[in-house]
This record gives sequence, C-alpha cells and structure tokens, in this order.
Amino acid sequence: MDVPIILSVALIAGIISIGLAVYFRFLVLKEDPGNERMQEVAGYIEEGAKTYLKVQYKVLGIFVGVLFFVMLFLLPNMTNPGTLNWEQALAYLIGCMGSMLAGWLGMYVGVKANTRAAQGCTIGTKAGFDIAFFGGAVMGLAVVGVALIGVSIIYWIFQSPLVVLGFSFGASSIALFMKCGGGIFTKTADVGADLVGKAEYNLPEDDPRNPATIADNVGDNVGDIAGMGSDLFDSYVASIVAAMMLAAAFGVAGIIKAPFANVTLTTIGTSVFIVTPVVYCGVGLIASLIGIYVIKNKGSEEPGKALNTGTYLATLIYFALSALITVITILLSNGLGDEEVGLLWRIWGTSAIGLISGIVLGFTSDYFTRDDKKPVQNIAHAAKEGHAVVILSGFSYGLLSVVPPAMGVILAMTIAFWLAGVFGVAMAAVGMLAIVGTIVTNDAYGPIVDNARAIAEQGELGDEVIRTADKLDSAGNTAKAITKGFAIGAANLTVMALMFSFAEEAGITVVDLLSVNVLVGAFIGVVIPALFSALLVLAVQRNAAKMVDEIRRQFEENPKILTGEEPADFHKTIDIATKGSLRELIIPSIISITVPIGVGILFGVASLGAFLAGAILSGFVFAVFMSNSGGAWDNAKKWIEDGNLGGKGTEVHKASITGDTVGDPFKDTAGPSINTLLVVMSLTASIFMGLLLMFNGGAGLLGNLLTIF
Amino acid sequence: MDVPIILSVALIAGIISIGLAVYFRFLVLKEDPGNERMQEVAGYIEEGAKTYLKVQYKVLGIFVGVLFFVMLFLLPNMTNPGTLNWEQALAYLIGCMGSMLAGWLGMYVGVKANTRAAQGCTIGTKAGFDIAFFGGAVMGLAVVGVALIGVSIIYWIFQSPLVVLGFSFGASSIALFMKCGGGIFTKTADVGADLVGKAEYNLPEDDPRNPATIADNVGDNVGDIAGMGSDLFDSYVASIVAAMMLAAAFGVAGIIKAPFANVTLTTIGTSVFIVTPVVYCGVGLIASLIGIYVIKNKGSEEPGKALNTGTYLATLIYFALSALITVITILLSNGLGDEEVGLLWRIWGTSAIGLISGIVLGFTSDYFTRDDKKPVQNIAHAAKEGHAVVILSGFSYGLLSVVPPAMGVILAMTIAFWLAGVFGVAMAAVGMLAIVGTIVTNDAYGPIVDNARAIAEQGELGDEVIRTADKLDSAGNTAKAITKGFAIGAANLTVMALMFSFAEEAGITVVDLLSVNVLVGAFIGVVIPALFSALLVLAVQRNAAKMVDEIRRQFEENPKILTGEEPADFHKTIDIATKGSLRELIIPSIISITVPIGVGILFGVASLGAFLAGAILSGFVFAVFMSNSGGAWDNAKKWIEDGNLGGKGTEVHKASITGDTVGDPFKDTAGPSINTLLVVMSLTASIFMGLLLMFNGGAGLLGNLLTIF
Repeated sequence: MDVPIILSVALIAGIISIGLAVYFRFLVLKEDPGNERMQEVAGYIEEGAKTYLKVQYKVLGIFVGVLFFVMLFLLPNMTNPGTLNWEQALAYLIGCMGSMLAGWLGMYVGVKANTRAAQGCTIGTKAGFDIAFFGGAVMGLAVVGVALIGVSIIYWIFQSPLVVLGFSFGASSIALFMKCGGGIFTKTADVGADLVGKAEYNLPEDDPRNPATIADNVGDNVGDIAGMGSDLFDSYVASIVAAMMLAAAFGVAGIIKAPFANVTLTTIGTSVFIVTPVVYCGVGLIASLIGIYVIKNKGSEEPGKALNTGTYLATLIYFALSALITVITILLSNGLGDEEVGLLWRIWGTSAIGLISGIVLGFTSDYFTRDDKKPVQNIAHAAKEGHAVVILSGFSYGLLSVVPPAMGVILAMTIAFWLAGVFGVAMAAVGMLAIVGTIVTNDAYGPIVDNARAIAEQGELGDEVIRTADKLDSAGNTAKAITKGFAIGAANLTVMALMFSFAEEAGITVVDLLSVNVLVGAFIGVVIPALFSALLVLAVQRNAAKMVDEIRRQFEENPKILTGEEPADFHKTIDIATKGSLRELIIPSIISITVPIGVGILFGVASLGAFLAGAILSGFVFAVFMSNSGGAWDNAKKWIEDGNLGGKGTEVHKASITGDTVGDPFKDTAGPSINTLLVVMSLTASIFMGLLLMFNGGAGLLGNLLTIF
Repeated sequence: MDVPIILSVALIAGIISIGLAVYFRFLVLKEDPGNERMQEVAGYIEEGAKTYLKVQYKVLGIFVGVLFFVMLFLLPNMTNPGTLNWEQALAYLIGCMGSMLAGWLGMYVGVKANTRAAQGCTIGTKAGFDIAFFGGAVMGLAVVGVALIGVSIIYWIFQSPLVVLGFSFGASSIALFMKCGGGIFTKTADVGADLVGKAEYNLPEDDPRNPATIADNVGDNVGDIAGMGSDLFDSYVASIVAAMMLAAAFGVAGIIKAPFANVTLTTIGTSVFIVTPVVYCGVGLIASLIGIYVIKNKGSEEPGKALNTGTYLATLIYFALSALITVITILLSNGLGDEEVGLLWRIWGTSAIGLISGIVLGFTSDYFTRDDKKPVQNIAHAAKEGHAVVILSGFSYGLLSVVPPAMGVILAMTIAFWLAGVFGVAMAAVGMLAIVGTIVTNDAYGPIVDNARAIAEQGELGDEVIRTADKLDSAGNTAKAITKGFAIGAANLTVMALMFSFAEEAGITVVDLLSVNVLVGAFIGVVIPALFSALLVLAVQRNAAKMVDEIRRQFEENPKILTGEEPADFHKTIDIATKGSLRELIIPSIISITVPIGVGILFGVASLGAFLAGAILSGFVFAVFMSNSGGAWDNAKKWIEDGNLGGKGTEVHKASITGDTVGDPFKDTAGPSINTLLVVMSLTASIFMGLLLMFNGGAGLLGNLLTIF
C-alpha cells in the first residue's frame, strides 16, 4: 500500500511552521530586554525554569528508559506478533524527545520574551502585545511543527499507524510529567506566595521581597507554557493516531460502517483515509499560520479582540482549505469509489463540526468565567457572606458549567457518528484540534504577559506601564479560559476515539454494561479521575504548606528582607517547588499506567473498554468543573480588586482571595492534568494489548468467573 | 402460583415492630418534659416542624395527585398491556402515604423526645441516652414496620412484584421531597445561624438570642429524622422490589443464570425466590428488635459503644436467623429442586456478604471522619494555613475517601454475582439493608440528642448537664457517619439491582457502550449527579443568604434581641427556610422524573440502562465525597473547639468554621439526596417502561439513527 503523496502537505506545513518559529524567535530576541533590574529578574526566572526542566528531564530519562526497555524487550517476548515492537519502541523514544523538545523551545523563548514584552509596554500596548504574541507563537508553531513532522515521517517510513501509536505514547508519557509536575510546581509557588505574602504581610502581587515571587514566575513558564504545550502536543498527536488506527482497522475489514451508509473500502481508499487526519492537520496548521500573519500585520490596540480574531480567521480558513484539500485528494487518487468520495465529504463535515463545537465549548467556559456574566457576579456577591459562601457558590457554578459543554460534546459526537460512524467521531476530534497552532499561541501568550507584568513591577517601570501590562494580561486570561474549554472538549473526543480504536484493535464488538466484569471496569474508571484530582490537589496543598513555612522562616530570621534591604532567598523556594512537584507525581503516574493494565489483566479487555469510557465521562465532569470553578473564583477576585464591592483590603476581598486560592490548584493543576491522564490511560491500553490478550485470550483472570455461560 | 406461607414472617415482624414503636412512644412520652422554658422551646420546635411538614405535604399532594392521575389514566391508554395499571397506581398511593406516615411518626416522637432527653441528662448519661434511643427507635421501627407490612400485604393481595413496584415508586417520590426539602431547610437554617450568629456576633451554638436557632433545631427534625427516615424507607423498599422483580422475571424464563451454576426454576421455587427478599427483611427486623432489647436492658455509660454493640449484635443475629429461615423455607416448600436448594443457600451467602460489606463501608466512612485519625487531623492542621487550605485539604480527603468504599462495593457485587448472578447482587442489597431498623434507630438518635443539647442550653440546665448532652451528641455523630456510609453503599447496590431488573423488564440483553446512543446515555447519566449536587448546594447558599439578611435585619432593627431583653422573631426564619426549601426542589424533582423518560424516548431503553449505570457510578462518587468531606470538616472544627491548636476564637478555629460551613450542605443536603435521586430515576425508568417501548419499540426516536446496521 503506497503512502499518498497528499501526505506531503502535512510535512511541508510542519517544516514551514518550524521555520517560522525560528524566525519569530529571532524577532523576539532582537527586541530590547529592558533595564538591568529587569534583566536580572528575567535571568533568575530563566535559571529557575531551566533548573526545573533539567531535574525533570533527568527523572523522565529513567521513566522513559524503563518503558523503552519494556516495549523493546519484554513486550515482544510476551506477545507473539512481536514484529512491530522495535519500531514502536523507537517511535516512542522519538515521541518523548519531540515532546521534550517542543516544551524546551517554548519555555526557552517564553523566558526571553517576558522581559522584552515588559520593555515593549513602555512603548505601547501594540509593541508589548506583538512581542508576547510572537513569543507565544514560537511555542504554538514548535508544538504543531514537531508533531506533524514526526507523525508524517514515521508513517512514511514504517507505513503503520501502530508505529505512530508508539510516537503518541511517548508524547503522552512526557506530557503527563510536564503537565502534572508543572501544575504542582506553579501552584505550590503561587498558593505559597499568596498565603503568606498577600494575606499575612499585605505584600502586593509580584513583590520582589516575597521569596516565592520568582518561583511563581518560573511556575508560569514551566506549568503554563511547557506543561500546556506538552498537553496539547499530546492530545493533537493522539487524535491523529486514533483516526489513523481506526482507518487502518476498517481497511483490513474492507468496510467503514456508519449509520448514514456503509462504505466498501478499496486499497487506495484505505490509504487515503489513513493519511486524511494528518493532511487535515496540515491544512489546519496553514490556516493557523495565515491567522497569525494577519494578526501580526493588522495590529490592534485591543489585544483580546486580536487574539479572538486570529481564532475565527483560522477557523474559516480551515473550512475552506480542508474542502480544497478534499477536492485535490479526490483528483489525485485514481480508483476511489463513489461511496468513498461521499465518505470523504462527510468526513470533511465531521471535522468542521468538531472545530465549531470546540469554539462553542470555549465560549461556554468563557461565559462561566467572565466577570460581566451572572456566575462570576454571583460568586463575587457571595463573598459578602464570607469565605464559606464564596466557596459554595463557586463550587456550584463549577458543577453547573459541566452541563452546556457536555451537551456540546454529545451533539458533536452524535452528528459525527451519524455521518461517518466511529471514524467520524475520531475526525471530529481531529477537526477540533486542527487549528491547535493558534490555540497554543494564544495560550502561551498568557504566561508571557503575566511574567512581563511581574518584571515591569520589579523593574520599577512605573504605574502607566504596569497598567498596559495589566491590559495585556487580562486579554491573556480570557484567551486562556477559551482555550481551556477547547482543550478539554478536544481531549474528550480524542479519548473517545481512542477507546473505539482500542476496541477495534482488541477485536471487541460489545462492551456490555450488564456484564458484571464490564460494570466493575466502568466503576473503577469513574473513580480514577476523582482519585487523581485528590492526589494532585493534596500534593499542592502539602507543598504549599512547606512553601509557607519557608517564607515565614525567611521573614522571621531576616527582617531586612521585608524592608527591602536584603534580597529574599528565592533559590530555596524554587528548590522546594521543584523537588515537591517531582516527588508528588510518582503515584499519579504509576496509577495512570498500572491501573488500566491491572483492569485488563483481571477483568479482561471489554472491562478495560468500559474502564476507559467511565474514566472519560467522569474525567470530563471533573476537568470542566475544576477548570471553570477555578477560573470563576479567579475573576471574581479580580473584579473585586477592580474596586467593586469595596475593593482591595476589605473582608469581601479576603473572602474572594480564599476562593481564588482554592481555585488555583483546581484550574491549573488537577483540572487540566485530567486530559493527559485520560490520553495516557487510553494509549496504555492499546500499547499493552498484546500482554492483556495473554490472559484468557483477553477475557481476564477473573473475567470468566463473572460471566454467565 | 401460591404465595408461600413463609411470607407471614415478614408480616408478623412488621406488626410486632409497629406495636413496639407505639410502646416506645408511650415510654418516651411519660418521661418528665423538663422546666417551663424547655417546654416552651420544645413547643416552638414542634410547631415549626409541624408547620413545615404540613406545607410540604400540601405541595406533595399536588405532585402525588398528578403522578397518580398519569399512572391511572394515561399510562394504560399509552401502553397496551395496561392490566396492572390501577393496581400499580393504587399501590403508588399507598406507598406515598406509608412514607409520609413513617416520616410523621418519627418526627412526632422526635420533637417530644428532645426535651425529655435533655431533662434525662439531669439524672445522668444513661437516663438521657435511653430516652433519645427509644425516641429514635420509634422512627426506626415505624419505618421498617410500615414498609414490611405494606410490601407483604400488597404482594399477598396482588401477587405481582410490578404492583409492589408502584408502592416503591410512591415511597421514593415522597423521599425525594422529604430528603431534598428537609436537607435544604436544615442547612439554610444552620448555615444562616452560623454565618451571622457565630461569626459576626460571637453568639454560642444554640443561643436563644439567635433568630435562626429554633429553625436550626426544626431542621434537625425535618431533615435528619423525617428526611432520613423517608430516605431509608425508600432504599429499603426499592431493594426488596428489585430482588422480587428479578426473581419473577427469571421465573418466567424458567432459569436463574449465574456464573457458579445455572438453576432451572420450578413453580414452587419461583414463588419462594420472589418472597425471599421480604422474608429476609422480616428476620432482619427481628434481629434489630433483639438488638434494641439488649441495649435497653444492658444499659451503658458509654453511649457510642452501646449503639455500635446494637449494630454488631443485630448483624450476628441476622446471620443466624436468616440461616434458620432458609432451613424452614426448605422444609416448608415441597417440590424444591436440589439446584434450587443450593441457590437458596448461596443467596443466604450473598445477603450475609451484603451486610458485612455495609458495615465495612460504614467503618471506612468512620475512618475518614473521626477526629483521632489522619484525615481529620491533617484537615485540622491545614486550618493553620487559613481558610483556603482547610478547604483544599477536606476536598482532597473527601475525594480520596471514595476509593475504599468503591472497592468494598465492587467486591460485594462481584462475589454476590459470582454466587447467584444479578439476583445475588439484588440480594446483597437486601442483606445490607436487612437490619435497617437498627440503622435508622441509631441515626434518628442523633438529631434528638442534638436538639436535647440545644434545649438544655436554652433551658439553662447548667454546664454539667450540657456536658452530658454533648457526650450523647458526640456518640450520635459517630453513629451518623457509620450509618451514612451504610446508606450510600446500600443505595448503590440497590440501584444496580434496579438497573438489572429494568433491563430484564425491558428485554434488553446488552447495553453496549460501543454504540453511540448508549454512550450518550451514559454520558448524560454521569453528568446528572453533578448537576443535581450543584442545584442543591446553590439552593442552600441562596436561601442561607436570605436567612443571613433576615437575622441581620432583626439585630439591627431591634437591638434588644441581642441583649436578651426581647425574644427574636423565629417564626420569620422558619418561614424563610420552609418556603425556600419547597421552591428550590421543584427543578431537581422535575429533572429526576423527566430526564430518564427523555433519554428513553430519544435514545432508547438500552441507552436508558447506560444512563442509569452512569448516574449510579458518578452518583456514588459524589455522594461519598460530599458526605465524607462534610463530616471530616465538621469533626476537624469540633476537635479544634475541644481546645486543640489554640481552640475557640483563634484564626485556626475560624478557618475550621469555614470548612464546616462548606461541608454542611455537602453532607446534609446534596450528598445524601443523591441516593434518593438514583432510586427515583431507576424506578421512573421501570414505571414508564410501557411509554418508552412505544418509540420504535424501545429503540428511541434517535436511537436508530445512531446504530450501525
């Protein structure tokens, strides 16, 4: 089976993307890095971030090494097919390195762009915006470029989606560490800094006297830039792989089944459908590039609007380009049957529906977290009744906010399924992630301007500049809310597609909830996201307590820190955040690999299918709830800080800070980590399939005891 | 098919139980009701509770009337079988009245026992304990007696589990109102009283100057006694019905399938298996009665130990008596096959496993909520870091606490299934609830002593008496934690059994998660408990805010209230709690009936099966999480109030109050209401089966569009 030439679109787009990332990096670096104090602060942040990543990568080295060893030597001996194992293991290694590279690149530019964006704010909003935006674009383009080049080349060489699965597993296992570890790091620092600095000593945000300020800024880079980049890298690749694997499985069967119409597959058709997900992502990347180019040239004094314009534009261009590439594909592919041509168009439809629903999801997140809408308003007013009531209010709205995106995903899923069966669901996920270049760019912009604001404060650039930086920061927060909704929806559809592809691979035709072994799998699956969230929140709480002790110790042992006469020891606080975050992610990462394998071995592969479904659905509830309640508390606090309900320093403000502090690990640690958890568990199920099939042919050790004959 | 004579055991036990309840009521009423002030306070509480129940029952009248009308006139016209409809509708009405009666009886004695228990405390721990315990026993025995008499007589007359289903649906629809409404009432008053009284004016707990004190005490009666009684009434009847319906369905098929061995059913065997759940509950009631009798005569200066002794004793006696009744059943039933005899013994085993796992579940709840164990200790210490950290800590431990009981339920379910198939799962639920007489007695004891403490405070009985009342109260809290774990586990197994019986009834053999319509059902099901929790917590928060405004208004308009010169206007606060709670439960109750019907109509009965499974699993997570985190925060606060970490009035104490206040609606409103929600939704599915089968023969309006042919 030949690889269709159309795949080169993805490869070329990936190469252009990397080229542009390098160019933007150059643009950013040639800007003025500001005064000496700013460069000093930025230098500390850079040093902290690099130290963290180095320690992180060292630990990861061991983890990756062990899994590589298992995949290379143990899995082939345990399973008979064995043929693809070295290729898969190699692809795994490349996936790990690709994910690390993308994270490193983004982080590297992020810590350079922050001080330059701060300096840019002395010129004006547009100058500051451009620098931060290009900095973010380096991350966005690097992530997508590395992913597309990796997937295209690996598929070109090995011509098997199962090898690409190894690449995806590599990306995911790194993402789990980067996202959870980064999330714990950033919130350890943030919560610690807030609890002592703001609440006990009334220091303002980003005050250099606070020993955790630098750690907090480092956290923005390692959590929000490197972590979030790995996360979307991971979902992106996984959505492509799920669709490729499904297409390949259907190709073997010779038919793609769908409610609309079953389609008999030809050899050429199969090869086209396998590469379609990659090609669509290629044109999505081109759409993102055009969007970025337009924002760059158009310029805007309204940064929030500029970011959103980029998203809409990329979406529209994607619709057009993906239609165009469908026409080209049909023209280039001699021998495609009429049914197959029809299916190609329906698939185009599912990818468009996926992308639209992604944007709708983003906007429902936005509604629940915007300070001019009812939920945040009510939460802010609840703060008048004290700490407990603001918590109850945010908790309730967070849970309520699960309903609209759930309906959105259900709608996208059903329409996509109706059009093109489970392959349609997979392609809806691909569509949702097609313009991920834009999404990551907008998202990475956020921590850069957040850092810029801190550096402007510490570099004493004056109130006017800080106000400009605040304006940029606020646009970043809105963009972040939208991209988070997007990321959760995309991950949800992706893992659904992975579940279907797992079932195809395992040869399961039914996952029957009326079988007790299957019901048990679903039960364990539903519990896992709750357990995972608990472990991560507890990790933040435990580390933040250590951070608090350290900050208090510094203030007590050296009163000159508070007067500003002597600098705080921020190396110590960075060290606490680094070590704590790595220690705390051992158990979650073990859970994410061993529990799916355990369920499969004990209760069988059908039970594992139900486990994945249970985890996906409950994971969706927890991810949306935690992200949105956290975002809403954050903005309720900011709205009060803008002078509403009495403003800063009042009891109402203090209650709103409690909400924000509770929301911090919800929205930046546990909530977003659940996506990655789901992807890792789904991929683990597929990768270890051979092992699972060894136990009663996939029925599991206990499965037979729980089946009625 | 004859009704086996053995069923009379249940009827007789029920009658004895009611007789004892009347006798205990007499014992309680003849005690000294205390001084004038105490009687005055108790009178207010009684008046408030009765007013609430009257208004509640009036609203319920409309709801019950509408559903009765639908069941009587519309359902038979819509469905063809139609034969059982008037019987089912009549049984529904009886079920409603039975549940209302049990609630009223318990509440009626509760509000009489409180002041007498307070007076009893002037004599000593034992005297106070006895009065409260007997008061609780009236509720416990009334609930179980009414339920068993109702089920036995209805089955004796109509000889169809489908008619008993109507009775169960009646009990559940009342329970939903009583539990949610009572839960909102009690926490509106409690949170309102705490927020203003304790936090702003530093009034002690139960201070008569606080206008919400009486409302708070009323809430204990309507929420914890009447509400909880209806809740367990509902689970109890539902577990019996689920098992009866499964036995009847298997009887029609002529075989009970199980992994251990399939059993061919004879006519006599079928009739025996159908009544076995009722008979087991009968002997469980006798076991409870013996336990209660022993506690009464043994007496104890250690109230907590006495309550637990009763539970253990009832458990052991249940094992013996249920084995004995199995022997008697076998002797009395001529013509039982050997296979059937073997199954009877295996069923005895599943009921024993159910009961044991119920106790284990209770103890894991206890571990997570006891002040001498690690979770509560860590939460209390987290309060040192402030309001936000105590919330994060309790939130995390609450989520962690889901894991052990989930493993317990999974274990009980798999062993029960292995022994006797899905009928075994239903019988495990029956076993878990068999000693519910003891459970309700212990649980109702709690609010009585809680009230007694308040009355002792307001009746100025002195510190010594209050300390005695505190001791009784603390035993009540431990008992409550255990019974709550018990109730959640039992409800979980019950609704699983209901789901299986629904599937049998609908003729579904497979609920396949790989079908998108089924997956959609599961998705909606998983979201519902989150939505439901959000609505209830929001209701409490909204009403508590109104309560806070009212209390502040009273203090501001009449400063003499605070000096104690003039009484507070507690009628107004009771009125706010009453009206608010009824208004707020309209939406949740509509959801619980319409969403299952909607899913069934749109996506088909298999999808509805998955909906139920999704709701059960996610409901379990939310119920356990909310109950345990609430309990843990409560006890962390109490532990600090006992003088630890600085004790009352410190910042640590204030932070712990925030935790407790957040936990209040978690543990007493949303958490426990989820059980009832699940039962109502499961029964709705079965009751409206005929309607659902009208849409594409049960495939649903959209189901066919989402199925691959």
